[in-house]
Amino acid sequence: MLSAVERKIGQFVEELDDKEVSALYAKLPHGKRLRAKLILKIAGTSLPVIKTAAVVEMIHAASLLHDDVIDDAYTRRSKPSLNALYGNKTAIMLGDILYAKGFFELNNISPEISKMISNSVVQLSLGELKDVSLSKSFNIDKKIYLEMIYQKTASLMEACAGAAALLANKDPKAYKIYGRNLGIAFQMIDDILDITMDTQTLGKPSLHDFVEGKTTLPYIYLYEALDDENKLKLKSLHGKKLSDNNTEWIMLMMQENNIIKKSYQEAKTLIEEAITLMNERGENALSHIAMAMIERDF
Amino acid sequence: MLSAVERKIGQFVEELDDKEVSALYAKLPHGKRLRAKLILKIAGTSLPVIKTAAVVEMIHAASLLHDDVIDDAYTRRSKPSLNALYGNKTAIMLGDILYAKGFFELNNISPEISKMISNSVVQLSLGELKDVSLSKSFNIDKKIYLEMIYQKTASLMEACAGAAALLANKDPKAYKIYGRNLGIAFQMIDDILDITMDTQTLGKPSLHDFVEGKTTLPYIYLYEALDDENKLKLKSLHGKKLSDNNTEWIMLMMQENNIIKKSYQEAKTLIEEAITLMNERGENALSHIAMAMIERDF
Repeated sequence: MLSAVERKIGQFVEELDDKEVSALYAKLPHGKRLRAKLILKIAGTSLPVIKTAAVVEMIHAASLLHDDVIDDAYTRRSKPSLNALYGNKTAIMLGDILYAKGFFELNNISPEISKMISNSVVQLSLGELKDVSLSKSFNIDKKIYLEMIYQKTASLMEACAGAAALLANKDPKAYKIYGRNLGIAFQMIDDILDITMDTQTLGKPSLHDFVEGKTTLPYIYLYEALDDENKLKLKSLHGKKLSDNNTEWIMLMMQENNIIKKSYQEAKTLIEEAITLMNERGENALSHIAMAMIERDF
Repeated sequence: MLSAVERKIGQFVEELDDKEVSALYAKLPHGKRLRAKLILKIAGTSLPVIKTAAVVEMIHAASLLHDDVIDDAYTRRSKPSLNALYGNKTAIMLGDILYAKGFFELNNISPEISKMISNSVVQLSLGELKDVSLSKSFNIDKKIYLEMIYQKTASLMEACAGAAALLANKDPKAYKIYGRNLGIAFQMIDDILDITMDTQTLGKPSLHDFVEGKTTLPYIYLYEALDDENKLKLKSLHGKKLSDNNTEWIMLMMQENNIIKKSYQEAKTLIEEAITLMNERGENALSHIAMAMIERDF
């Protein structure tokens, strides 16, 4: 039924009645449509459900367009990003168009759904700003990191699950926790992959996040585990281009202190909580989505 | 009662519960609050009216933040723009936050108002893209120019007037025409001032729009008035840095063909139509707002 969502998005884009927008939209990768899948699994395939899923994917696409400009990212899903192909300005404008059309269409679903989704976009945009601001200093406060990834990544998934539950006349509370846990775990795993993935694909880690100033969960745990001297050393390396020696030292410290496993365990705990909640409700498909997430490559 | 709108915007910003956003917002110039004034003059000062005015001004501020990034504008109201002070990325993110909060708050007014305003933001963002795209070639199609400035500038003013009329239980039709005419005339006059203003303040015109590739109403009329040879010459100068000789030639052609007066007359006709509509309804304050617009300096 994901094809019904694709058709609805296509219809929304055509309604904008602008050839350039249609052509630009056609160049965007569709992604995994994880948020749409989540909504369909919870709420079935009625028209309001399809519309909600379509709106959420448009909003998600808009947020990625702006993210790529903000993060100077020139690839997305191994292809050149829209800002790389057509410039930052076009990416900003297309993002604004998709956001506005998404918000407009929320009015054609229900006030409750509209509030839930649009509030999550407020959180998402605040999270994006916080992510950039935090990277300007060496943040070692786990609470602040968790709040930021909740806003940046989990709030929209929480709203998707909550909105879908409302549409299906299910109790939104458990579904919101499910979406929230999935979102936070998803971002934690993404942050772990930033450290582990390059080792597999490039032969050595680039520690891109740390170089960019982002002290994600593994760095927070590593800092906590180090003695005072090594704490200072880690801090001194933050936000700078790393020499091979220093990269190796960070990786060695991560290994010695079992940091990746510890971080991964934290994501896993959230996923397990989400799975238990869904198993209690006989929502096997939703448990499987959650399970697939912890089985991503490390 | 504009102060009630300012307080409401302040409250909306505080509700975001983010110190950085509050600090950034405090740095934004308030502007003339033309859209809020329009709404208050039409609909009075009930809470839904104040909320609508506050939302519209937040949305307008968001659009200006993104505009300044897209236009590489480093000043706004003779002060450094937010993107000049804090970089393009911060301007994009703050714009997204204000947009999202504005859309969220529309849910607390009424579905009809929410649809009208959010649809105008779709148009506004489409207009912004069209403005940039049109500047890549020599557009001499007046219809396309009018459609673009309707979307970019007039659609939000049309929605403001229409929403205010709805809130005041007045017939929205006439008020929407009023807002639309005001918006189109406002942009036409802005485009004329781009040609005439520098001559007064800098001693010579910079023809900034034309250099940027924007063929606004005066250039479209000038092209229509020129003979074939001069048409070619004008076209050859489009979108390039101009020598003093070429600037003088354009200004001379404008003068000989009475272009500024003709363009100004077109804006004036729209304003007069708006004034007549409001006079018929005894809306003197609204007539005055319209009149003030044609009395801007030339």
